[in-house]
Amino acid sequence: MYKLVLIRHGESQWNLENRFTGWHDVDLTEAGVAQATNAGKLLKDAGFEFDLAYTSVLLRAIKTLNLALEEMGQHFIPVERHWRLNERHYGALTGLNKAETAEKHGEEQVKIWRRSFDVPPPEVDTDSPHFPAHDRRYSNVDPSILPKAESLKLTIERVLPYWHDVIRPSIQNGKRVIIAAHGNSLRALVKYLDDMSEDEVLELNIPTGVPLVYELDKDLKPVSREYLGDPAAIKKMMDAVAKQGKAK
Amino acid sequence: MYKLVLIRHGESQWNLENRFTGWHDVDLTEAGVAQATNAGKLLKDAGFEFDLAYTSVLLRAIKTLNLALEEMGQHFIPVERHWRLNERHYGALTGLNKAETAEKHGEEQVKIWRRSFDVPPPEVDTDSPHFPAHDRRYSNVDPSILPKAESLKLTIERVLPYWHDVIRPSIQNGKRVIIAAHGNSLRALVKYLDDMSEDEVLELNIPTGVPLVYELDKDLKPVSREYLGDPAAIKKMMDAVAKQGKAK
Repeated sequence: MYKLVLIRHGESQWNLENRFTGWHDVDLTEAGVAQATNAGKLLKDAGFEFDLAYTSVLLRAIKTLNLALEEMGQHFIPVERHWRLNERHYGALTGLNKAETAEKHGEEQVKIWRRSFDVPPPEVDTDSPHFPAHDRRYSNVDPSILPKAESLKLTIERVLPYWHDVIRPSIQNGKRVIIAAHGNSLRALVKYLDDMSEDEVLELNIPTGVPLVYELDKDLKPVSREYLGDPAAIKKMMDAVAKQGKAK
Repeated sequence: MYKLVLIRHGESQWNLENRFTGWHDVDLTEAGVAQATNAGKLLKDAGFEFDLAYTSVLLRAIKTLNLALEEMGQHFIPVERHWRLNERHYGALTGLNKAETAEKHGEEQVKIWRRSFDVPPPEVDTDSPHFPAHDRRYSNVDPSILPKAESLKLTIERVLPYWHDVIRPSIQNGKRVIIAAHGNSLRALVKYLDDMSEDEVLELNIPTGVPLVYELDKDLKPVSREYLGDPAAIKKMMDAVAKQGKAK
């Protein structure tokens, strides 16, 4: 029996401003820092020990992980960063807030991007600063596989190879793993693990900074899944995330 | 031609209290946090880019690195933690302050431990919490090679295999490397790189939070070595470190 902990980064500056963030690299807010530290405290109080951590190459996830590990006194474990755990790439919507997006593309179109599983937003131009090939952190990646825009479906297809090739084998080798990532890259993992339908995963709103604990059997099938912390507080956070829409 | 940057962690709580710290895992002070951030700023202003970072498994070095990388906007690079980059293990002196040490072991003896190259302090008992085998972060290490006390000589012998086997090959493979570590593990590297005598390395006082920049030729022999920052301020810090003795 294995345990696996997923954690979504705390509130970021662009969460706060309700702008599409995606691969744009923003910092946590003060509230986000507090959420990350609190996640570490919950895990420490529950007696969790980890051998290995995975995160994206984006500051808000890395910092959430660092703060949580520090709070747990487990800052010494190896941390692997990988672009496949990044947030969904919001393409040409990156940086726009909800109002700007509705103005630019129309209410109806925005609804489709938000509610659909497989319709990606418009692509970034390859000369846009939001095209990942201009960022040296992706310099080891073939630009032809770097996203210009992603639906949730495309995000899942990009995340899962890292699960199958890297994370899963490490869990099977007995490593106790924590993953700090993003709303949609975590949806990708949860959809796969819990064998959710497309409709189910669209309804899934993972709260920020709340550890999601899986127990997995020897074949890494989930036996249980639960959030750590006060259920009423978690419910409130999930409702807040759902209400906010998917403007992350 | 390669560049290599070394950085000693910012002020820790036990630096402040003038206690022998060694492998005991203490946090940075507020001043230490500011030093780490400032180191990042100096490196950013000087245009440094890194591909890979190395640090110890102790919070004060890890956090110094995290803060500096964040300030540089280079939090996305891989970070390798390893116990071989830890501070010198101060054995049974761990936790004592200078006054307590003099009282317990005598002024003359303390002078020998501080000024000698190869006389280790008294060993910790294997049932002491300061014996590393009781700490799960060293659970993958054969307890027979974990230190019970280290002279500077023993520290150097423990650090250098990691340089030769891991860090050096990565530099030769073209990785631009930063190492965040401790007064004595950095002395080990500097003694080796600059081919210092035992007397010379004992006189070397690396200031906290000041990036030390090496230019290395194709055989990794130093062509130049300089501290980044205002020379007068650095001189003041080095004098402060020297004055403090080696009670780190």
